[in-house]
Amino acid sequence: MYYAVIFTSKRTSIDDGYLEMAKKMEDLAKLQSGFISVESARNETGITVSYWESLEAIRNWKSNLDHLFAQEKGKSIWYSYYKVRIAKVEREYDFGFL
Amino acid sequence: MYYAVIFTSKRTSIDDGYLEMAKKMEDLAKLQSGFISVESARNETGITVSYWESLEAIRNWKSNLDHLFAQEKGKSIWYSYYKVRIAKVEREYDFGFL
Repeated sequence: MYYAVIFTSKRTSIDDGYLEMAKKMEDLAKLQSGFISVESARNETGITVSYWESLEAIRNWKSNLDHLFAQEKGKSIWYSYYKVRIAKVEREYDFGFL
Repeated sequence: MYYAVIFTSKRTSIDDGYLEMAKKMEDLAKLQSGFISVESARNETGITVSYWESLEAIRNWKSNLDHLFAQEKGKSIWYSYYKVRIAKVEREYDFGFL
């Protein structure tokens, strides 16, 4: 049993180091206790889904100081909208090979 | 309380009507009972997250005949890999305006 954090967003037109910060946050998330994996894609809408072993791991990541700084910059500069959903993965299946 | 179906995929290089079918399936999903919304983005990885009122609505959509046909074509032609996760949304928050 594990959890998904579904982060969907709309970007503003302001760059100001967005891609570097996104990469930095992804690298930092991977170092957190309880992190499982992350997947991202962006066209008009951006979708990042990260997977975590527990709600506690998600809470810890949300309150990480570097991450808090990025969240504030996200709200003031990079995103016109975002939504975060925390969901418990109940079933899964796959096809083919990565 | 509602559910997310997180569909992540890697495409083959074969087009053969993929975008038309993806659009058709999105339009058809929106007509299903229990459908809430859907969001998609694709770069190297494709991520489509659809939201549903119940597991029954998800089961019904999975077994829709037109959708079954698309799923088969997906496995034989369009996708080298995909993973489907069904998750119960437990918490959500947002920022800004759509």
